[in-house]
Amino acid sequence: MGAWSEGLREECGVVGVYGRLPAAPRLYLGLNSLQHRGQEGAGIAVSDGEHMRSHKGIGLVNDVLTEPVVASLPGAFGIGHNRYSTTGASARPENVQPIVVDCRHGRLAVAHNGNLTNARELRRRMEEEGSIFQTTSDSEIVLHLIARSRRGSMLERAREALAAVRGACTVLLMSEKEILGYRDPFGFRPLCLGRLPDGYVLASETCALDIMGAELVREIEPGEMVLLDASGVHGVPPSPGEADHPKAQCVFEQIYFSRPDSVVFGESVDRVRRRLGHELAREHPAAADMVIAVPDSSNSAGLGFAEESGIPFELGLIRNHYIGRTFIAPVQNQRDGGVKVKYNPVAAVLRGKRIVVVDDSIVRGTTSRLLVRMLFSAGAREVHFRVSSPPMTGPCFYGIDTPKRSELIASQLSVPEIGEYLGVTSLGYLSLDGLRRAVAAPERFCYACFSGEYPVPVTDEVGRLTLERG
Amino acid sequence: MGAWSEGLREECGVVGVYGRLPAAPRLYLGLNSLQHRGQEGAGIAVSDGEHMRSHKGIGLVNDVLTEPVVASLPGAFGIGHNRYSTTGASARPENVQPIVVDCRHGRLAVAHNGNLTNARELRRRMEEEGSIFQTTSDSEIVLHLIARSRRGSMLERAREALAAVRGACTVLLMSEKEILGYRDPFGFRPLCLGRLPDGYVLASETCALDIMGAELVREIEPGEMVLLDASGVHGVPPSPGEADHPKAQCVFEQIYFSRPDSVVFGESVDRVRRRLGHELAREHPAAADMVIAVPDSSNSAGLGFAEESGIPFELGLIRNHYIGRTFIAPVQNQRDGGVKVKYNPVAAVLRGKRIVVVDDSIVRGTTSRLLVRMLFSAGAREVHFRVSSPPMTGPCFYGIDTPKRSELIASQLSVPEIGEYLGVTSLGYLSLDGLRRAVAAPERFCYACFSGEYPVPVTDEVGRLTLERG
Amino acid sequence: MGAWSEGLREECGVVGVYGRLPAAPRLYLGLNSLQHRGQEGAGIAVSDGEHMRSHKGIGLVNDVLTEPVVASLPGAFGIGHNRYSTTGASARPENVQPIVVDCRHGRLAVAHNGNLTNARELRRRMEEEGSIFQTTSDSEIVLHLIARSRRGSMLERAREALAAVRGACTVLLMSEKEILGYRDPFGFRPLCLGRLPDGYVLASETCALDIMGAELVREIEPGEMVLLDASGVHGVPPSPGEADHPKAQCVFEQIYFSRPDSVVFGESVDRVRRRLGHELAREHPAAADMVIAVPDSSNSAGLGFAEESGIPFELGLIRNHYIGRTFIAPVQNQRDGGVKVKYNPVAAVLRGKRIVVVDDSIVRGTTSRLLVRMLFSAGAREVHFRVSSPPMTGPCFYGIDTPKRSELIASQLSVPEIGEYLGVTSLGYLSLDGLRRAVAAPERFCYACFSGEYPVPVTDEVGRLTLERG
Amino acid sequence: MGAWSEGLREECGVVGVYGRLPAAPRLYLGLNSLQHRGQEGAGIAVSDGEHMRSHKGIGLVNDVLTEPVVASLPGAFGIGHNRYSTTGASARPENVQPIVVDCRHGRLAVAHNGNLTNARELRRRMEEEGSIFQTTSDSEIVLHLIARSRRGSMLERAREALAAVRGACTVLLMSEKEILGYRDPFGFRPLCLGRLPDGYVLASETCALDIMGAELVREIEPGEMVLLDASGVHGVPPSPGEADHPKAQCVFEQIYFSRPDSVVFGESVDRVRRRLGHELAREHPAAADMVIAVPDSSNSAGLGFAEESGIPFELGLIRNHYIGRTFIAPVQNQRDGGVKVKYNPVAAVLRGKRIVVVDDSIVRGTTSRLLVRMLFSAGAREVHFRVSSPPMTGPCFYGIDTPKRSELIASQLSVPEIGEYLGVTSLGYLSLDGLRRAVAAPERFCYACFSGEYPVPVTDEVGRLTLERG
Repeated sequence: MGAWSEGLREECGVVGVYGRLPAAPRLYLGLNSLQHRGQEGAGIAVSDGEHMRSHKGIGLVNDVLTEPVVASLPGAFGIGHNRYSTTGASARPENVQPIVVDCRHGRLAVAHNGNLTNARELRRRMEEEGSIFQTTSDSEIVLHLIARSRRGSMLERAREALAAVRGACTVLLMSEKEILGYRDPFGFRPLCLGRLPDGYVLASETCALDIMGAELVREIEPGEMVLLDASGVHGVPPSPGEADHPKAQCVFEQIYFSRPDSVVFGESVDRVRRRLGHELAREHPAAADMVIAVPDSSNSAGLGFAEESGIPFELGLIRNHYIGRTFIAPVQNQRDGGVKVKYNPVAAVLRGKRIVVVDDSIVRGTTSRLLVRMLFSAGAREVHFRVSSPPMTGPCFYGIDTPKRSELIASQLSVPEIGEYLGVTSLGYLSLDGLRRAVAAPERFCYACFSGEYPVPVTDEVGRLTLERG
Repeated sequence: MGAWSEGLREECGVVGVYGRLPAAPRLYLGLNSLQHRGQEGAGIAVSDGEHMRSHKGIGLVNDVLTEPVVASLPGAFGIGHNRYSTTGASARPENVQPIVVDCRHGRLAVAHNGNLTNARELRRRMEEEGSIFQTTSDSEIVLHLIARSRRGSMLERAREALAAVRGACTVLLMSEKEILGYRDPFGFRPLCLGRLPDGYVLASETCALDIMGAELVREIEPGEMVLLDASGVHGVPPSPGEADHPKAQCVFEQIYFSRPDSVVFGESVDRVRRRLGHELAREHPAAADMVIAVPDSSNSAGLGFAEESGIPFELGLIRNHYIGRTFIAPVQNQRDGGVKVKYNPVAAVLRGKRIVVVDDSIVRGTTSRLLVRMLFSAGAREVHFRVSSPPMTGPCFYGIDTPKRSELIASQLSVPEIGEYLGVTSLGYLSLDGLRRAVAAPERFCYACFSGEYPVPVTDEVGRLTLERG
Repeated sequence: MGAWSEGLREECGVVGVYGRLPAAPRLYLGLNSLQHRGQEGAGIAVSDGEHMRSHKGIGLVNDVLTEPVVASLPGAFGIGHNRYSTTGASARPENVQPIVVDCRHGRLAVAHNGNLTNARELRRRMEEEGSIFQTTSDSEIVLHLIARSRRGSMLERAREALAAVRGACTVLLMSEKEILGYRDPFGFRPLCLGRLPDGYVLASETCALDIMGAELVREIEPGEMVLLDASGVHGVPPSPGEADHPKAQCVFEQIYFSRPDSVVFGESVDRVRRRLGHELAREHPAAADMVIAVPDSSNSAGLGFAEESGIPFELGLIRNHYIGRTFIAPVQNQRDGGVKVKYNPVAAVLRGKRIVVVDDSIVRGTTSRLLVRMLFSAGAREVHFRVSSPPMTGPCFYGIDTPKRSELIASQLSVPEIGEYLGVTSLGYLSLDGLRRAVAAPERFCYACFSGEYPVPVTDEVGRLTLERG
Repeated sequence: MGAWSEGLREECGVVGVYGRLPAAPRLYLGLNSLQHRGQEGAGIAVSDGEHMRSHKGIGLVNDVLTEPVVASLPGAFGIGHNRYSTTGASARPENVQPIVVDCRHGRLAVAHNGNLTNARELRRRMEEEGSIFQTTSDSEIVLHLIARSRRGSMLERAREALAAVRGACTVLLMSEKEILGYRDPFGFRPLCLGRLPDGYVLASETCALDIMGAELVREIEPGEMVLLDASGVHGVPPSPGEADHPKAQCVFEQIYFSRPDSVVFGESVDRVRRRLGHELAREHPAAADMVIAVPDSSNSAGLGFAEESGIPFELGLIRNHYIGRTFIAPVQNQRDGGVKVKYNPVAAVLRGKRIVVVDDSIVRGTTSRLLVRMLFSAGAREVHFRVSSPPMTGPCFYGIDTPKRSELIASQLSVPEIGEYLGVTSLGYLSLDGLRRAVAAPERFCYACFSGEYPVPVTDEVGRLTLERG
């Protein structure tokens, strides 16, 4: 089954605000709306123009940023960060962002979304030169680079520092006076700019703008830097070289990660997913009584499939929103592997029916298999499994927490073999071409996990596992 | 807007299990699936046949029943309870259920769903006789009554005791040896029986059976008692008088409270809601481009409206599942009253469109109004508001936490006036007749909050406010 | 070693205040000063004359009564309670006092210090009559009795109710209007009355008066009731029969439990302990270089021994105040049984010296033995162990948490055998006569744990273990 | 009144252990015995020879190092740290030690006690070179210096690195293979070596050895390094130049900070304090009925005064051990400034008597004044205040958290003026000569806070306030 239930996690959400009203409550709201991008930890750093204060911790935004904490953090600008969820055991408090340091340029805070492909190399080099690292986060690397720059302004220092990093790097950087936003020239991770009555917002997705009551101005361009300070917004467009730089926007943001109510990479996520559903229905039609989606991330694609095929859309699975991680699943529910704890079929809908199930992706295939079994147990007569993305054959090195290649079912089995493993009546994946047709500017996307064509070379697959990603 | 956002809360969920495997993990799962019925507090009591142990607390099931707690509670049978959510301030730890006491019949635990209409009177009488009360829960009243009975078996004592109560009373009662389930003769609140490989389950809704891997045997009849012990299940059917007793099953369980994947009062909740949508579409058609529902509780009715009307169903609102209660809403978002924190419109879906919005009910109307405004702001051209239940004109005295009559918008304004207040293009409520047509055995339901015909007389409207309900 | 290290715990402290300033901060201070009487749980109930509110929990006063909690409890009068410490596992939240109930006399709160010897019997009788019990605390029994009384005033109801109880019962009872204090006619546990600039205080010990800035008026007499309300203090002296009632003040309050800075049973605790030391020195002189005490409870007796003997007093043991219960002791420090975690010898003081060690009592003897070994390891040449109370041969049934008889070393071994077991150079216990000489009115005390003469018959030694004591 | 009540806090305790049994429980015990040296936060880092793990947090040792935490940290060697207590608000989690980093020499942990006088300068220089700082702790500076060293062994790197620091620096450094201990050549802060049956211990005070069952081998010399690894202990004596280096052991360790049961700077702390009392009695005799001490830190000096003067020692003040910081004090007890919350006089001891009160120091004088008032209120006829150290006229720059100069009463008033301010019958401070006579090797001590002669120049008094000290 899809990305959510198989533990494919976005690795971070970032938000920054520069206004005249208190920033902390706004950052709290923004992080809440970006909670889907990271559930392991959250934090904010705010400044009143004189002093920077921060608070962060392990847990959901609501757990970490309690009312007294938010009330105790004065200042009209700040940045915030959500970190992705792994097992509690490996949650390292020191990795929670923003990371705040003192350096010769004063106090700095950084919140990062992405994964530097040369993190190991940069760390090794800086360690060799005598640097110490207190976290395994890419943000700390960025801070080291900035601290080393001798340029005269934050913008110039950031430019110099960020020229050294490779890979996915959407980053917010804050001093006691200003906020700087940056997207790497590939543009792997999104970043958008919004306007408040009294200031500006930078955020991973537009849903964070909506919750704050900000209007979308535009997305930050790949390679662009933007500075928020007391005098407003100052964009520094990418250099001509960077503007021509190949783009590699993460297509998985469209397929799964972003919220459907967000506008990401220039398009409504919901609209893109509808088109994925349309393409999928055209490529893999099915004679069925209904279309259901694996909630919630596949809903838009499911609706798209229904629109195109003319088969009615149904709500056949209920997702239990209260259970995040349950400790019971593996023990008690061995037979269904915890799928029942996350989803329940609506038997009255499914019984005796031929069903198209639309899911956004298949990662390991283990939970998809259990889901299929559950649908049949609930009385489904046929289960036509449709995946709104191509077979995932490679890991991501640019900020998504994928399992290693050998655990990806599509790297091990052919599509018919997968169908057999899942026990479905029929199985259809969207083709890479179909995927490219569904997005607006296909040449601007990264499809590496499907195509194996990695836009940024990764020297060392083992290497990346030794560092966490921000 | 609908029940969920306007704070209409179900007041409890109950679950009991008698098997041969540890009961605590099963109760944990069952309570998780019933979390929508109460979020204020949770608890379980389990017995190994010799000793009864319990644990309960303020908070969600996952907060209260942590892994070490569940592991520390041995025994193959037990009962559990979810309590509804009010403001944190008024959450009284002693009211969290099950309530466990010692009496001459040994140790007893009770979990109750409903609201006794003669609670005040019973309490007053027992206080007059020298009794003390440590909670404001109806469960404590039931326990007092049972302790006073001199009958020879738990079944007989329960029968004697429960003969004294009036109103809504679905209750699970546990001794160190057995579990007893009961539904009052009106049958206000649901209770079903499921079969496990090694025992039996009693639960408010079938979704709790599903998560435990139990099969539905049947619903407990109004007026019926059922006993689970080492020798199996023992049903005690209602007496002839009780079998003919008028029924008053809560129609709001069908409209809003129960999960759509549950079977309640003999029917799939999803199916009933579809029919509500069908009836609504027939009664109040609209010339529109799409149907959207207020997620998640109105999804089934929305789909039903779409089916009947032929207007495409769309997902136009995203509900933020991470934010339960946010402390920011009233302060920062005065203009939209916190609606933006709960829902975000998908502008790409709504822009320029004529929209039917299906909601399950309108309580105070304040948030519905803000929702309508939000839809128009997102670009909707027309908003045709359709409510899948009749105008709510009276409070509930049988277990639902409704505001008082004067706060119910439909008790103060006519439908056209409500439409004007909401600012909608058109407004349509399902008629009482339409509602009756949509449910299976209309004569077995209570419609008091819509019709004003209360099946059990309530002596004292003020009175009910002085006691909390279980 | 002495009472503290061997787990002999006082079972409760009570405090009540009726003034014109907020009561909660005063109760907080008072409970803090009485923390030595109970460390398991704490709670307060306060009233503003209209409503009673309460807060209680497991833990130390500082953990339970945090600043926001204290600030949230308005009202100028209230009562508080400290509960004794047992293992965390058995700490039952519902047993923490004050217990607050509703009954026909309105809302009532009770805080109790002592142990009813007929608790089982009263419970059994009331259960037989249909009552339910939610705790195992004697306070609940008192509340049941009061609720059953049909008398016209709280004073009369309390008199009727308390006439039924046997054993040790110092109790504070509060309605929404008044506070009532009572000491049973034996006077087992202390209770004193203090005057504030704006009202009155009732407390277990005078140290609670001191910390609130109250002046001692007098101790409440055995059998006396005293009422605090808006019009001041109203004493109801014991009836003539009660005035002549034999007294049984707990001599262990003088020996160990009370703070030395308190005045208890008409005398400075420090002064009494000095006299215990004087008598001990006369009965069991020793040729030694120094006198040390096991801190802190034996300090006064140690000083007394030094005064009488002319041997210099020394501080030879340091008590670690930060470690309450450590989980390491039993595992790591098997050889010294955790004594090293609690105490450290000052080798520079002890090395090569002949030492008199004064301890207040020997309970099981196991830790005393380890302490002696530790002193020799630190270089002591001779260890003359002196105990400022007689051999403890029987358990307490009146409110002290003693082990059962068979675990009391003095009930199993003769004094020479104990000396041999401990490995001391010499051992001397204060005689019962010596103890009687040291207290002011020896005929008014209970010496049951030393003499076996129990002033109130206990029907059932096993029985008492099934109920906890308040 | 003395150091404890006036908030003079030691700034840290360190402990390291290298054995064959689990290190975490031992570090837990050691930190507990050193809790008096720092109550703000605690932490440990342990290694199993392969991996280093750590846990730290705000709070007392018992709060931070819970049983499951200790059980989850495997490895036979490790280091631990207690941090001093300031107001909760300023407690920065990132400053809690040990600080653990990765650098080219692998993973390193550091625990530091002292205060680098050139911390600002070192930081400024390293920041200038591009380094970043995530804490305000001196430990981080030490780690930077070590990471920059290119020497071949930990010992050599530490030597190079530590050559750069000035001021007070007792430090434990751990790699995944070994532990290194170091005392700066002045020897400001103590460090001792103990032997376990299966290994070795390094600790600030010998009381940590005692609680672990270790024997004192010797103190680490000023300027000495010692390495613990699988092959045992390797001392690296100070170089000839360092051996001749002037010493500046903190005399306040003897006067107040260390536990009396510790051996520090070659002498029993209790013995030194006795001699302080002797000298004080000789310099400032008094015609009095008794000597009392402000518990607990002045007990030894009080006993010494009694020994020399022949006036009996009494326990006239009871310290409340349960109240650390109370939030009530300043509000409710304005008149006595919270002194009553910390201490209670034993009126029976004091009434009508001429009293010598021995306290270890007077810092601001405000609480001493309230204490004197309290003694008179309790009935004392005369109060002869005797201070077992000279007038404190300057702040400490070497690791003690003193107020600034202008807040030290003795820097503002003459002794007679102080006596008048305190309201005492007479006042006597120990002379500097007397202090020097009382310690063993007076030329090896720092008396700067009394004499104004600072052994290490401090460039910038303001400067030191901007960095916290470890």
